Amino acid sequence: MASCLARVDKREDAVRAWAYIDADLAMAAARACDRETRRGPLHGIPIGVKDIVDTSDMPTTYGSPIYNGNQPAADAACVALAREAGAVIMGKTVSTEFATRHPGKTRNPHNAAHTPGGSSSGSAAAVADHMVPAAFGTQTTGSVIRPSAYCGIVGYKPTFGKINRTGVKPLSDTMDTVGLHARSVPDIALILSVISGQSFPDLKVVAEEMRPWRIGICRTPYWDRADAATHALLDQVADRLGRAGSKVREVVLPEPFPDAFHAQDVINEFDTWRALAFERTRHPEKLSTTLSERLARAGRRSAAEYTAAHNLATKCRGLADEMYSEWDVLVVPAAPGEAPNGLGSTGDPIFNQLWTLLHGPAVTIPAGHGPSGLPLGIQLVGPRGHDLRVLACANWAADFLAC
Amino acid sequence: MASCLARVDKREDAVRAWAYIDADLAMAAARACDRETRRGPLHGIPIGVKDIVDTSDMPTTYGSPIYNGNQPAADAACVALAREAGAVIMGKTVSTEFATRHPGKTRNPHNAAHTPGGSSSGSAAAVADHMVPAAFGTQTTGSVIRPSAYCGIVGYKPTFGKINRTGVKPLSDTMDTVGLHARSVPDIALILSVISGQSFPDLKVVAEEMRPWRIGICRTPYWDRADAATHALLDQVADRLGRAGSKVREVVLPEPFPDAFHAQDVINEFDTWRALAFERTRHPEKLSTTLSERLARAGRRSAAEYTAAHNLATKCRGLADEMYSEWDVLVVPAAPGEAPNGLGSTGDPIFNQLWTLLHGPAVTIPAGHGPSGLPLGIQLVGPRGHDLRVLACANWAADFLAC
Repeated sequence: MASCLARVDKREDAVRAWAYIDADLAMAAARACDRETRRGPLHGIPIGVKDIVDTSDMPTTYGSPIYNGNQPAADAACVALAREAGAVIMGKTVSTEFATRHPGKTRNPHNAAHTPGGSSSGSAAAVADHMVPAAFGTQTTGSVIRPSAYCGIVGYKPTFGKINRTGVKPLSDTMDTVGLHARSVPDIALILSVISGQSFPDLKVVAEEMRPWRIGICRTPYWDRADAATHALLDQVADRLGRAGSKVREVVLPEPFPDAFHAQDVINEFDTWRALAFERTRHPEKLSTTLSERLARAGRRSAAEYTAAHNLATKCRGLADEMYSEWDVLVVPAAPGEAPNGLGSTGDPIFNQLWTLLHGPAVTIPAGHGPSGLPLGIQLVGPRGHDLRVLACANWAADFLAC
Repeated sequence: MASCLARVDKREDAVRAWAYIDADLAMAAARACDRETRRGPLHGIPIGVKDIVDTSDMPTTYGSPIYNGNQPAADAACVALAREAGAVIMGKTVSTEFATRHPGKTRNPHNAAHTPGGSSSGSAAAVADHMVPAAFGTQTTGSVIRPSAYCGIVGYKPTFGKINRTGVKPLSDTMDTVGLHARSVPDIALILSVISGQSFPDLKVVAEEMRPWRIGICRTPYWDRADAATHALLDQVADRLGRAGSKVREVVLPEPFPDAFHAQDVINEFDTWRALAFERTRHPEKLSTTLSERLARAGRRSAAEYTAAHNLATKCRGLADEMYSEWDVLVVPAAPGEAPNGLGSTGDPIFNQLWTLLHGPAVTIPAGHGPSGLPLGIQLVGPRGHDLRVLACANWAADFLAC
């Protein structure tokens, strides 16, 4: 904790990852751990918590001025479960406004002129900058994977429902997923095992059992929105994974997968209009223009459109189940390229939306650098419920994709 | 509002339906509606809100002393949406402890020695006693349907996900459902249309299109837990529905439906242990013995059991989809019998658990009386997403099952 706080002291002015941090409180909690008998596998480990997640002893603003100074009565389930296992909540990390697209104050730790990505901006930046070893994030569209890739760390969006969402400010009930940011895949697997109630896996044993991995390289229907560096990265990764002994083939997503991008947007907007009903009716003047405009569009989404989007999602999930009989994991872009220059946008979630909609696990690991020298991540996705498989493959691949 | 408040004044000492009610606040809100232009279809309508649902201007205790005086920062989505359409939130209705089984103070308005059922005890009792025309409830196991049946009113548990759950204290993320209590099916359809964004249906037109109804009479695998009055009621209802022109046949649920009861319990316990992680780790001394014992058992549920239970649920949902190609709705018991004597238990949810697990819509309507003269309800259930069909059938049946 002392070294984490020293790093925050040195770097927070530049990175701006924290919405709330009280060094004395964090240190006192760490000292309390020293005096206690070991509570569990996370005893004494500092963890950052995205400010969309409630904490009983730290204010929680959901990234919005509507909630300045808001003090929740309870810890979110993921926070309480981490604390039960001994974790020390170090502080609250910056979220975009209600985990949507209006950016917070955070900058990319590799280049302060660039976005860290969003919406879990502070969690990704704080972990990347070695201020904290791990942090909770959330993903409704691409909010864990994209900022993790932009910041050059490991990001994990579990199978939908795997981490309890109690105390997390909702956006879309059918897609919101609590995820994790860390600097290694085993760190993520350890925290996941505590939070989800599963035993902590030996990822190397899992990988050994799965070999040779059947890996699909999927350029997705949105390939033309990825830049040249990402195009080259996917080729390079495919080549390396093949030479490492896995069975690598191209996979093309058939109809109606290309339409799933739109379905994710419809569901997200319809749900968000309802989830933020209090804020949009009582505090419209405190919403950003970005969010106000999005909500105005969202209010025009019909129940029929919403139902059709869910039907398409259900169909795609079934097709994905069939598809995964041939593949252990798919390797896809994590983002269109490196973190864009500028702080006005958190980047394009186009390479995340489909996988969030499909409800399966997604992991990003660092795999290269872009033309500006910023990190590029690659994304591994797999079938619903097979998080362990995807984490094991990411852990295996990280060894020889590391850069 | 004046007549509702007069009824509360007269009857609340006996019924004890309200966790919080401020007559001046309610009257002021109603008067404000009189002065405004019409906001929407619920303009001026008093609505009760189960105290498991957040309100920005009234304390919300979740039925637990841990949250005495707790004042949420925001309205739950269903509350904000109802207010946007003009509804006046009249007060907070009593919930059992965290919507689990430890009863609150409420009594059955038909006989104060009997339970009103739970966990939406106050909502059902207040509506039944004509203190308020409609109220929000929630159901994770049988918490809308059972108290509605015990109190002799209409209760509706929507298709899972149909009403936004933002601001509702979670128990089980995969089963919690916001529902409605009212004294007529059209009242429920009106409120539903506002909250869910669907247009308000003419239930009689829907019923006309569906006739002749294909109705399955389902004694369920738990038939021996229903009493003689409920056995007779189901026969009588089958007879009346048949004579009214519907095609009525017995339906027997095949394997593995009988095991779904257990699966619902496993999922509920596993989820609840996590959803209440803050309360059980930080305030164990303020939990009831009933809940503490349940949580101790819940903590021993393994992730493998949980996954198996979800797999069974998914399988049963698929089988139900097939089954419903032959039936428009099923008619099943709403509860084992009339509201039990005594206030220490809220009754047995055995006739609700399967239908909650299946995620489809359920409606209860009053259909008779038991040996103590208390109301008996009958339950109509249908396929996921076909709420309108089930409401239309309930509305049609209510005309000649009314008692």
